[in-house]
Amino acid sequence: MLVAGASGYTGALAARLVDRHPRFALSAVTSRSDAGRSLTELYPHHRVDAVLEELDVDRHADVDAAIVAYPHGASAPVVAALREHGVRVVDLSADFRLRDRDTYAAWYGEHGAPDLFGCAVYGLSELYAEMLPDADLVANPGCFPIATLLALAPLARAGAIADVVVDVKSGVSGAGRAATPRTHFVTVDENVVAYAVAGHRHAPEVDQELAVLGAPVTATVQPHLLPIDQGELVSCYVTTTRAWEQAELDAAYEAWAGAHPFLEISAAPPGVRDVRDTNICALHVRADARTGKVLVFSAIDNLWKGSASQAIQNLNLMFGYDETLGIEPR
Amino acid sequence: MLVAGASGYTGALAARLVDRHPRFALSAVTSRSDAGRSLTELYPHHRVDAVLEELDVDRHADVDAAIVAYPHGASAPVVAALREHGVRVVDLSADFRLRDRDTYAAWYGEHGAPDLFGCAVYGLSELYAEMLPDADLVANPGCFPIATLLALAPLARAGAIADVVVDVKSGVSGAGRAATPRTHFVTVDENVVAYAVAGHRHAPEVDQELAVLGAPVTATVQPHLLPIDQGELVSCYVTTTRAWEQAELDAAYEAWAGAHPFLEISAAPPGVRDVRDTNICALHVRADARTGKVLVFSAIDNLWKGSASQAIQNLNLMFGYDETLGIEPR
Amino acid sequence: MLVAGASGYTGALAARLVDRHPRFALSAVTSRSDAGRSLTELYPHHRVDAVLEELDVDRHADVDAAIVAYPHGASAPVVAALREHGVRVVDLSADFRLRDRDTYAAWYGEHGAPDLFGCAVYGLSELYAEMLPDADLVANPGCFPIATLLALAPLARAGAIADVVVDVKSGVSGAGRAATPRTHFVTVDENVVAYAVAGHRHAPEVDQELAVLGAPVTATVQPHLLPIDQGELVSCYVTTTRAWEQAELDAAYEAWAGAHPFLEISAAPPGVRDVRDTNICALHVRADARTGKVLVFSAIDNLWKGSASQAIQNLNLMFGYDETLGIEPR
Amino acid sequence: MLVAGASGYTGALAARLVDRHPRFALSAVTSRSDAGRSLTELYPHHRVDAVLEELDVDRHADVDAAIVAYPHGASAPVVAALREHGVRVVDLSADFRLRDRDTYAAWYGEHGAPDLFGCAVYGLSELYAEMLPDADLVANPGCFPIATLLALAPLARAGAIADVVVDVKSGVSGAGRAATPRTHFVTVDENVVAYAVAGHRHAPEVDQELAVLGAPVTATVQPHLLPIDQGELVSCYVTTTRAWEQAELDAAYEAWAGAHPFLEISAAPPGVRDVRDTNICALHVRADARTGKVLVFSAIDNLWKGSASQAIQNLNLMFGYDETLGIEPR
Repeated sequence: MLVAGASGYTGALAARLVDRHPRFALSAVTSRSDAGRSLTELYPHHRVDAVLEELDVDRHADVDAAIVAYPHGASAPVVAALREHGVRVVDLSADFRLRDRDTYAAWYGEHGAPDLFGCAVYGLSELYAEMLPDADLVANPGCFPIATLLALAPLARAGAIADVVVDVKSGVSGAGRAATPRTHFVTVDENVVAYAVAGHRHAPEVDQELAVLGAPVTATVQPHLLPIDQGELVSCYVTTTRAWEQAELDAAYEAWAGAHPFLEISAAPPGVRDVRDTNICALHVRADARTGKVLVFSAIDNLWKGSASQAIQNLNLMFGYDETLGIEPR
Repeated sequence: MLVAGASGYTGALAARLVDRHPRFALSAVTSRSDAGRSLTELYPHHRVDAVLEELDVDRHADVDAAIVAYPHGASAPVVAALREHGVRVVDLSADFRLRDRDTYAAWYGEHGAPDLFGCAVYGLSELYAEMLPDADLVANPGCFPIATLLALAPLARAGAIADVVVDVKSGVSGAGRAATPRTHFVTVDENVVAYAVAGHRHAPEVDQELAVLGAPVTATVQPHLLPIDQGELVSCYVTTTRAWEQAELDAAYEAWAGAHPFLEISAAPPGVRDVRDTNICALHVRADARTGKVLVFSAIDNLWKGSASQAIQNLNLMFGYDETLGIEPR
Repeated sequence: MLVAGASGYTGALAARLVDRHPRFALSAVTSRSDAGRSLTELYPHHRVDAVLEELDVDRHADVDAAIVAYPHGASAPVVAALREHGVRVVDLSADFRLRDRDTYAAWYGEHGAPDLFGCAVYGLSELYAEMLPDADLVANPGCFPIATLLALAPLARAGAIADVVVDVKSGVSGAGRAATPRTHFVTVDENVVAYAVAGHRHAPEVDQELAVLGAPVTATVQPHLLPIDQGELVSCYVTTTRAWEQAELDAAYEAWAGAHPFLEISAAPPGVRDVRDTNICALHVRADARTGKVLVFSAIDNLWKGSASQAIQNLNLMFGYDETLGIEPR
Repeated sequence: MLVAGASGYTGALAARLVDRHPRFALSAVTSRSDAGRSLTELYPHHRVDAVLEELDVDRHADVDAAIVAYPHGASAPVVAALREHGVRVVDLSADFRLRDRDTYAAWYGEHGAPDLFGCAVYGLSELYAEMLPDADLVANPGCFPIATLLALAPLARAGAIADVVVDVKSGVSGAGRAATPRTHFVTVDENVVAYAVAGHRHAPEVDQELAVLGAPVTATVQPHLLPIDQGELVSCYVTTTRAWEQAELDAAYEAWAGAHPFLEISAAPPGVRDVRDTNICALHVRADARTGKVLVFSAIDNLWKGSASQAIQNLNLMFGYDETLGIEPR
């Protein structure tokens, strides 16, 4: 398996997970910026002995599948080239997540592979497991939508969501490996701040999938940057279409988690430490008797379930393996 | 001036602020648990050369005013005793913040000084400045209500709030000095977690004051614990009673901040670093065109504006000084 | 396998590692303070479905081996009882590390199982691998000695150490799970401080083993507490008995690391992030031409190689398995 | 007063300290990279309402004094230009700290103002207070030398230092405002790592001043990067020329601290939290009976006593004010 764009946080982790996977083999890792360097040099803790190469589609397409971890916009042409060579692709970027061309254009601009637009399966395994075995192009979701949709799916499917506020608290690795004033330690440390106010690109993705589930709402999705490296906590404040008892909520969420190996119902509100370095999403739901709202908290590791290990879960299903293969918690 | 309960985080800071104040003098500091120890031993960075004593109201009441920094419940009897000696009191606990006895009983149980219940001025200087010069008993607000009310006052006064979700992100000093599993470094570090889900005691306090301002709502107030020592960010998601333009919001908030020296309108969403070790509340308001909601972000230092320096601001107004005396940012 | 004292950080991790081990089975976990609670409740991220019990040696001794994770002093009697039942024991405490009774008495006081004193194999696998297959009682070393001895062994064996200063930088989990003012988040955060100045209990342990290796020195071992949860960096400043060239050092350390699967020579000075959640010790050695000293840096995870996974490595060797079984980096 | 290079961490803090100083006035702030932006935009927490300008020596030299906060090498020409206009200068860079041209060349290369080389007073106020009133050019020391020399001065003056290892633990702000992989939050967080192994540029500066004090040694100075924003702890391991009793050390250090308002002797080992945002250096000395060494711990805030507030202390003495003016702890 090829990992293209393996010098970033998610690509490098994807390479490690492929490298340790009992059925997949890591055939090559590529990077636009760090070709010639080894992954071990960039990420000593991953312990992947592989040298980053310049991507050469003619040569590197000699694989069954690829994970593409390019930035938004840059990904589409690479995905298209790999698809032309018959390579099955899981794309970690936003390029193939949306299904409405106008929405894509409004948030991201011109698309880099318009012929493939709309052809991808939305790669949230818990929602699209049945479509993955036949998928040749999978759009790995954004990390905020992953945590949010896993938190809201039972309520959305029950038609219970009239309105929802999604307050996202995210670690710095979500901002990527680029060294910027925003990711400088001194900026982040002892701080917490909202960003992308009233306009984060993951919001239309949440809306699209909530509508599919049965909740045609415009969600308020507001991220905040926290002084943690990995981890993402999503606090969902749901105005419901009717009153919900706690017991009813418990039943719905136990059923939801019971059907999916990587979902956990936490007895107490989950912390991101509880799911660090795992593909697990920990959920906690509560009826608020004072306000009538339903509160759902959802914790994931943004680099794992929010990206790289979610890609492995998709690939497991694409190739007919158990979805937990190689990403069981240890 | 007496500071009773000066061994905790807020009491110790209050003692320091009194000690450095150009008009107030620190006459005594007391502690139930650490009598005999010096404040410098407990808090080297405050550099207050004073030895903690057991509180002896007969002896210590020989002052004009006192700051009482006892836990909820334990405070009321001490406040009552000091009031009997004619001492003007700013109470940092929750014992005198609420004005409805049933609400108090429901959240806190029996009251420790029922005769004084309802007699305090709610000590948010920006709202009650006119009542403070004549006040003998001031209930310093909770830190969440302080940040929340300063964020919402312009909208509440305009009758614009139909519903509001308040997502609070708080540093660990807000949980107090007690060493518990919850405040252990290893619990908090690299973590973020919701607590007091659907039932934090500051919620009825927010409701009470929002109603006074003109917004009779039941607010959803949900705190989260962050790996920072000081600081509190409040993200308010307001469903408004009518549509608001950004320009209209800007005007309302500029007017609000312009009238109060410790309120700042931030051009970008404020971080808690921006207000660390100050009495400042930094605000940022935004109309969200997608959802129709109004978002307000409010950053304070929970130990300063959220407690100890807010007390000094109240005392300045109680004694006829400029409200900024001794707590100007440096 | 039994893990006694599994409610602490190292005991709980040991239980997890046994639980996931391909050859060992976790038969019981015990705790003096938390009997009746589940490990998942205490440590959600370990995901070990086991309920803590009160230790009952008659019942729990029905195992081949046990890991005892009791505090110093409390451990010896439990170890003795288990040994009487024929259970092979790896003891994580300091009770059996020292071999000189007077030294033990000076640092720890009276011994809790004097008949067993001096009977344990010192469980640093890289030094005592040959003695482990026949060992019935293994004293898992302290975390500082582990990092220090792995850093200095090549020089000590070469008779090259005239004097050494060992500056230890340790994460908070090393101080244990007890909630104290010292482990409170607000105490540790944004701080660094020396502790146990001129007298940490690990110093005589370092001296004992350096002498065995060929360096009869009195080491200066000075720990510092850092705002990190896991991880320990040891900086060794060696005054050598003769001059050393860098090439000579490189050869000695490459040979040392080459013979042991969990030792790594880092091209750059190692950070504790590089070895987090692994049994690896990363080393970096440098001749300082200015001063004539040799500098060695050694990074481990104090909970893993510094304690729990080191215990598994010992158990692997005690039972004839490959020493890496169940603790390979993933 | 002019602050040139005010967009960096130390320059910006110097500007704030000048702005709040009772006797100095901030006439202009300049920046090569951020001209046109306001200091408040870059550093909201400093609350300095001043717009950064391009430096124009002809125009900006209309001041009594300047603080120059340029990088090493870039500083010397600016200092020379200001000196030509008669401006008294405190230079925060390393350009004028060394007094031996060969040493400078070996560590920094060609000098940018050779005519001024060797003309500066070394601006550690506690050592050179008598020379500062007449100084026109003051070389503010490096932050490591400041903490180290204040820790070792009593021993050095007593001729007691035979050898010394200086283990430095430094916060990230010491690496400056530039966003690099090394200062990325994800690199630093939960990590600790040595850097500039066996060759930090502050070492020859320490040697130079130790020799002046009476200790002609080659010090081992080894820095480590910690996940804290501000603060620096220096652990000095001194091999003494003769044995020292604790009482003798206490007397020497009490005398040393007693003579200088910003030196404090801490009863316990000092943490960097104790001195955050102050000009104070906290010291703790201990005779190690086991090893015969003397251990000295020294904590400063690298941005304050390690740079900007040390510059103000120097300027106070240069202009005949009390050295504490404007930088008293509050």
